[in-house]
Amino acid sequence: MNFDFKKEFKGIISIIGASEIDKETEEKAFELGRLLAKNKYIVSCGGLTGVMEAVCKGAKEEKGLTIGIIPYREKSAANKYVDIAIPVPFSQARNIVVVLSGDVIVAIGGKAGTLSELCFSWIYGKPIIALSNVEGWSSQLAGKKIDDRRDDMIYPASTPKDVMIKLNDILQDKNNELSNKSNTPI
Amino acid sequence: MNFDFKKEFKGIISIIGASEIDKETEEKAFELGRLLAKNKYIVSCGGLTGVMEAVCKGAKEEKGLTIGIIPYREKSAANKYVDIAIPVPFSQARNIVVVLSGDVIVAIGGKAGTLSELCFSWIYGKPIIALSNVEGWSSQLAGKKIDDRRDDMIYPASTPKDVMIKLNDILQDKNNELSNKSNTPI
Amino acid sequence: MNFDFKKEFKGIISIIGASEIDKETEEKAFELGRLLAKNKYIVSCGGLTGVMEAVCKGAKEEKGLTIGIIPYREKSAANKYVDIAIPVPFSQARNIVVVLSGDVIVAIGGKAGTLSELCFSWIYGKPIIALSNVEGWSSQLAGKKIDDRRDDMIYPASTPKDVMIKLNDILQDKNNELSNKSNTPI
Amino acid sequence: MNFDFKKEFKGIISIIGASEIDKETEEKAFELGRLLAKNKYIVSCGGLTGVMEAVCKGAKEEKGLTIGIIPYREKSAANKYVDIAIPVPFSQARNIVVVLSGDVIVAIGGKAGTLSELCFSWIYGKPIIALSNVEGWSSQLAGKKIDDRRDDMIYPASTPKDVMIKLNDILQDKNNELSNKSNTPI
Repeated sequence: MNFDFKKEFKGIISIIGASEIDKETEEKAFELGRLLAKNKYIVSCGGLTGVMEAVCKGAKEEKGLTIGIIPYREKSAANKYVDIAIPVPFSQARNIVVVLSGDVIVAIGGKAGTLSELCFSWIYGKPIIALSNVEGWSSQLAGKKIDDRRDDMIYPASTPKDVMIKLNDILQDKNNELSNKSNTPI
Repeated sequence: MNFDFKKEFKGIISIIGASEIDKETEEKAFELGRLLAKNKYIVSCGGLTGVMEAVCKGAKEEKGLTIGIIPYREKSAANKYVDIAIPVPFSQARNIVVVLSGDVIVAIGGKAGTLSELCFSWIYGKPIIALSNVEGWSSQLAGKKIDDRRDDMIYPASTPKDVMIKLNDILQDKNNELSNKSNTPI
Repeated sequence: MNFDFKKEFKGIISIIGASEIDKETEEKAFELGRLLAKNKYIVSCGGLTGVMEAVCKGAKEEKGLTIGIIPYREKSAANKYVDIAIPVPFSQARNIVVVLSGDVIVAIGGKAGTLSELCFSWIYGKPIIALSNVEGWSSQLAGKKIDDRRDDMIYPASTPKDVMIKLNDILQDKNNELSNKSNTPI
Repeated sequence: MNFDFKKEFKGIISIIGASEIDKETEEKAFELGRLLAKNKYIVSCGGLTGVMEAVCKGAKEEKGLTIGIIPYREKSAANKYVDIAIPVPFSQARNIVVVLSGDVIVAIGGKAGTLSELCFSWIYGKPIIALSNVEGWSSQLAGKKIDDRRDDMIYPASTPKDVMIKLNDILQDKNNELSNKSNTPI
């Protein structure tokens, strides 16, 4: 590699969403993947179909780096836009690793599996952004709290571009907080 | 043991709910534990405090059998009303085992952890009953679906007694279905 | 239940061994299950075939209580001598729960899966007894240490009866240690 | 990124070994990390100290890419030579993910944790190379089988250079096998 990995990338963003999606959700996930890669973020996800495939495809369009945390033993189960497949053959427990691999979580629609990932993101203290105008749990929880343990909320965003703005805000706040506290880089 | 274990008990019911609860929720959890044990159900839960402790305490009041699926290595982390402690030191992934240990799931209130358990119950096809008049996710989802993958819903129940009625209905339906299909006992 | 569960049983013993075994190993596993149940121990195991099935069958012969920690979602995957099936659908990670469910571990033969369980038993500080005259890893490691982190060893036992003697020694030592330290019962 | 990720790297090699090591083992792990990176392999490991830190340090010396599968929630627990930290807070079950993240496994010394990883590598069908002249389980099992399920063995290698030769042999065989069978690239 002719570059410094840690300087090249600004962080890892985990994208969560359903494995079966409509055309509109697919386009938004693709566009978000594209924007994340263009802005030097690594994309992490569950590595399978639907939102996971669309966001990886978008990221690769901009020569980004993609990680797929798959719930099977064989790396070949990952979609073809995944660069690094990490097998976690622990059924739904793989959702926890998807969440923890990210510095920030972005939800696009989603069913019960995505809702479980929103819960883990909330419990583990990860900043969360939820696309607010697609069908599924990201819309239902955008702008809300899951319970009273945190002062912040699941931040709403209406477009992939909005997600990027919110993401920069979050990471800037996080950096400021850290440099005020301890000079530790993220 | 001077009895036939499989004849003695009618099934295992997993109770999910928060680790910090108010007096009213505690009383309902205790009463449910008592009724479950009296009616020959084994109680399974996360084995710690709050709803988990109250339901185990109720079950032991009636000399029932209690299982605690705890997220720590040491069995001693379980509350004192747990008969059989099963350590699953996998952080939030232990929630999956709590759900799968039960034949039916009953939710009493609950925060993000309980909501993740409701998601897993839904994904793994477990019948779910939710107490509808306590604070938390069980009230918010009682009578609803988490997504469109199932024809049934999260059944609402307003009291521990109601839970027992609903529980008997569910297990009767399940038995009928099975005996129609294959004569396989549950 | 017309008995006090915690008084009825002296502890949980996890039995580890291969899923495909010869007649001799099967007979020893069956005999060990019988002796454990007769002496008021609960049997825990991986819940499938081979050593797991034989030890459960033996325990049920004496009306003992059996726990099967199975690597599948469906409880019906457990062998028919399992009373309480706990699904841990996390591939080989279920081996960790098999080990942690026991107060003492007994190995009978075994291949790579059993060897991984011996490693976990060693790491988690569980007392281990290994049958020394059956084919497999229990014979190869009987009387040895896996590494230098512990002062004790994998205790060898040549027959199921020997296992019971060693087991009583271990639990007596453990009780004495505890009562000297803190009066806490196990 | 100004390169094609999948063309840039030849595969992911998981390195397993103890967290506390002597100077000689450290030097060998460092040298292996260096050689792997120089030869366009990604290094994966448990992300902590000892062999894990030395191999990552060596890889970064040659501007390689390193993955750390850590058993804690916080990415900051990884050693400073880890580029991509994947938290798997599932106690010893994280060892399974370390193994499955690699296309080939290389063991350097090791205690009970490493032995459990050798078992999983064997069970999941991963090619294994073991350094034969360092203290620990890699020496004890080099040139041997863990059980009879596989036709191959744990390949012995006496130096990091030897590991590289063996590694190339294994991956060439694997490629040939695949191109004969199905033209599917790895």
